[in-house]
Amino acid sequence: MTRTFGTPGQDLVFVPLGGAGEIGMNLYLYGHRGRWLMVDLGIGFGDDSMPAIDVVLPDIRFIEERRKELAGLVVTHAHEDHLGAIPYLWSRLRCPIYATPFAAALLETKLKEADPPVRAPITVVPLGGRFDVGPFNVELVSLTHSIPEPNALAIRTGAGLVVHTGDWKFDPHPLVGGDADMAALERLGAEGVEALVGDSTNVFVTGEPGSETGVRESLTHLLGQYGDGAIAVTCFASNVARLESIAHAAAANGRRVALVGRSLWRIVEAARRTGYLGEAGSFHTDDEVMKVPRDRLVYICTGSQGEPRSALARIAGGSHPCVTLGRGDTVLFSSRMIPGNEREIFRMQNQLVRSGVRLVTDREQFIHVSGHPGRDEVERMYRLVRPRAVIPIHGEVRHLTEHARLARGWGVDTALVVEDGTVARLAGGPVEVVGEVPHGKLVVDGSRIMPFESEVLRSRKRMMFNGAVVVTVVVDLGGTLVREPQITAPGIIDPAADEDDHAALAKVVRTAVAGLAPSLKRDDAAVREAVRLAVRRRFKESHGKKPVTDIHLVRI
Amino acid sequence: MTRTFGTPGQDLVFVPLGGAGEIGMNLYLYGHRGRWLMVDLGIGFGDDSMPAIDVVLPDIRFIEERRKELAGLVVTHAHEDHLGAIPYLWSRLRCPIYATPFAAALLETKLKEADPPVRAPITVVPLGGRFDVGPFNVELVSLTHSIPEPNALAIRTGAGLVVHTGDWKFDPHPLVGGDADMAALERLGAEGVEALVGDSTNVFVTGEPGSETGVRESLTHLLGQYGDGAIAVTCFASNVARLESIAHAAAANGRRVALVGRSLWRIVEAARRTGYLGEAGSFHTDDEVMKVPRDRLVYICTGSQGEPRSALARIAGGSHPCVTLGRGDTVLFSSRMIPGNEREIFRMQNQLVRSGVRLVTDREQFIHVSGHPGRDEVERMYRLVRPRAVIPIHGEVRHLTEHARLARGWGVDTALVVEDGTVARLAGGPVEVVGEVPHGKLVVDGSRIMPFESEVLRSRKRMMFNGAVVVTVVVDLGGTLVREPQITAPGIIDPAADEDDHAALAKVVRTAVAGLAPSLKRDDAAVREAVRLAVRRRFKESHGKKPVTDIHLVRI
Repeated sequence: MTRTFGTPGQDLVFVPLGGAGEIGMNLYLYGHRGRWLMVDLGIGFGDDSMPAIDVVLPDIRFIEERRKELAGLVVTHAHEDHLGAIPYLWSRLRCPIYATPFAAALLETKLKEADPPVRAPITVVPLGGRFDVGPFNVELVSLTHSIPEPNALAIRTGAGLVVHTGDWKFDPHPLVGGDADMAALERLGAEGVEALVGDSTNVFVTGEPGSETGVRESLTHLLGQYGDGAIAVTCFASNVARLESIAHAAAANGRRVALVGRSLWRIVEAARRTGYLGEAGSFHTDDEVMKVPRDRLVYICTGSQGEPRSALARIAGGSHPCVTLGRGDTVLFSSRMIPGNEREIFRMQNQLVRSGVRLVTDREQFIHVSGHPGRDEVERMYRLVRPRAVIPIHGEVRHLTEHARLARGWGVDTALVVEDGTVARLAGGPVEVVGEVPHGKLVVDGSRIMPFESEVLRSRKRMMFNGAVVVTVVVDLGGTLVREPQITAPGIIDPAADEDDHAALAKVVRTAVAGLAPSLKRDDAAVREAVRLAVRRRFKESHGKKPVTDIHLVRI
Repeated sequence: MTRTFGTPGQDLVFVPLGGAGEIGMNLYLYGHRGRWLMVDLGIGFGDDSMPAIDVVLPDIRFIEERRKELAGLVVTHAHEDHLGAIPYLWSRLRCPIYATPFAAALLETKLKEADPPVRAPITVVPLGGRFDVGPFNVELVSLTHSIPEPNALAIRTGAGLVVHTGDWKFDPHPLVGGDADMAALERLGAEGVEALVGDSTNVFVTGEPGSETGVRESLTHLLGQYGDGAIAVTCFASNVARLESIAHAAAANGRRVALVGRSLWRIVEAARRTGYLGEAGSFHTDDEVMKVPRDRLVYICTGSQGEPRSALARIAGGSHPCVTLGRGDTVLFSSRMIPGNEREIFRMQNQLVRSGVRLVTDREQFIHVSGHPGRDEVERMYRLVRPRAVIPIHGEVRHLTEHARLARGWGVDTALVVEDGTVARLAGGPVEVVGEVPHGKLVVDGSRIMPFESEVLRSRKRMMFNGAVVVTVVVDLGGTLVREPQITAPGIIDPAADEDDHAALAKVVRTAVAGLAPSLKRDDAAVREAVRLAVRRRFKESHGKKPVTDIHLVRI
């Protein structure tokens, strides 16, 4: 049914290359009249099957191969999973970038700090602005989210109008930035929206999500409750409204605020540069407040997800250069646990509790709200925009499928679940799957970027389970072993502790070589293979393991 | 303050070797008059920092070294984290084992299936029984939990009486086995309990947990709602009451029940052998029901935690030999997500949804209750038993600390948080820490058992992040390279794809050898070290990596 997709025609097509099948790694393409519009280029996060991988990128080879057709990249907002891949991948695309002031400021910093620095042209577009990117006319519609300046995109083409929501919620009192532009959504609905491509993160969530204003009131109350020691609050660094709320709550309780963690300073700097945080007062560095009495202090720390190198993880582990927390101090987790991060978070929380710290989480107190729409808000969005079709994005398959089911229940004609790499027609013909394109995941591994499905990573995973063994065998021309075998078996034999294993393996090697027929002894490949098989058989029997095995043969 | 502990005297001491600092790996020692009583010997579960490790065992060297002092092992109940380590470790202890009929039946099967089989003497003790184990008089007190025959232990010694709760809840309608013996708890309270050592799993949970009977009613209703296809229910295999409930619900809706997953059969067999499941009707094998219409079928499947080799994971992945699920079928998760398992569970759920399966979890429907006591039940337990002191167990530090805080709030004189390896006096003197003993974690790795903190596992972790490299260098007596270097670099160079890397590394090796002073060239260690450093420097620069590195030097 599906076919590999080429160049878009008069209709309007949509291709997710990331974000439809996972939360994170957002990268969406809209295609029309031979050109592509890219929306977002974000990173994904690691996977517990491969702990060494922290950063995942979408595989962009489809669009890289036709980058001449790429009219531009529009960034919906400044979260890492929407713009974090730009420093890694922009040089393969070299397209114009469009972003609102806050996202542009943050992106500029990131591009400057990249190694090597990336010099990409960013066109700063105003909130509510409207501009052409090739054959796409893009109008920004301000929404609310957990970061300043979240934008939905109204994309007008010769084939019709579609709305791409980005990440959003309807926060009636967002504190930072304006309210969601309901009038604009209603106007789009009146104009006629062919399709809405929308956020599915919280489709399993019912009930009212609450507002940032409520969190501010709650924090102001709570910061007065823990009078005896220092208070640390951890939250997502990019939540500028939350930072402002913590600053307000601290001021109301006569406490000064220190920021601990580099990404907080990066956010604050970008926020101030673009007109936010005007009322937040001063933020101090951790060493500026070393003489301030502990009960006059609030630390804002990175590390709400237990990230090992974050400020709070280092404080919890007792390895932070300036900040210590202990008996009498309190840590507030003004954040949620992202699924998959539980063990790291709990490990850090256990360390804090062991030091005598009092923990307060969003389980006990109202100190966090989500930035994504629960199902009631999604339904409200649909009543405003009245799309003829819905394509759920920003979710795993279970989210996308539930979102589609809900949309159908709310009377949307067509709700189509597509995953990364699938091409769907949105306008100019029936809404349906019309092709597929190459897609996948790349990983940032040290200073390299490589496919997730690479031999290097497969080997690494095999070694994680089974260890590795390399044996050097020195034989004469007749195939007689003339040196003791040299064996390195990391992750399976500890040379300091397992002397017997080492000696037994050497014997296995000697026997394997000695047992070969004279003609085979003269054949390098045969000697290597005999030793390889004997070594593997030995480890299977003695250790229940199949190490990654290689044999170096030296013939003298 | 603390000192290494030796042999217990006239007082009564308590030493957790597992379970105080983690959920799982339960192993508790009570010491009195030169003898030790062991309570439980369970496995722990892997850790996402080391995905290759599935099974963790408590490090028993403290008690192994004094096994003559070990009077016996009492098993509180049949969960893996309370008896699962016996097949691995009993041969190092060789002590008598005491268990009630169901746990004894299950343990016998496990010991028989172990490789090699373990022949351990199990004394079957009746529910409510009372018996001597060395200087300890042990009385079993029936409680309720998510498995048949959960027992608290009333341990009477010359120094006084303590109560060890095991895992428990107060289920007013437990369905399988009797009710919790409230009268016995009250009687113990009247007798005077020096200390209660108790379950902390759900100390953060408030509100009524609900009963198995409620789950049965809900399942009976729900199994009538999904009339169109097959229904699969996944739950913890050892929850015999749940199995019976599913069987009842199936029968009420005219559906036959097939068990999919070996551990289900092991549990059902042990349950039937000890008088449970009498009213559950027949369970079929998956191939027995292949001709039964799908809308007349309920599969009970292992795999509620997304375990990769479980029945449901194989069905979801399309690799199960008998069972397929797809459009029109429904899977009920009659279980909770154990923290840390979210990603595996969601991965499996996404596969099921992609096949068109309808998912029902405990988020949408009342189809699971916990087996552990929420804080209200813990308070109720304290009102009955009225312990003078409380030692929280079965929890991470954050659970233990919260449990202790609650206990103090309920008027308990002393609540002492101790972690694995700490010796606490419970009776015969002040309740306090009196020493410490060696403790730790062992891992089952293939057919070996080794310390978690071993060089072998450290290497494996390093290789997971950085790969490994072994270079064989052949030089003559003067130190001139006489063969091309042989390089194996799994997890960092793919020989098929990275030819340039390979060639560049060979050049680095040649240059390193050639650059040595003539005197050093004749020194094996110097040649090896020069090559090792050059190789590591190269990978740091070119790949941002520090592979595990070894050099094989052959001099001819």
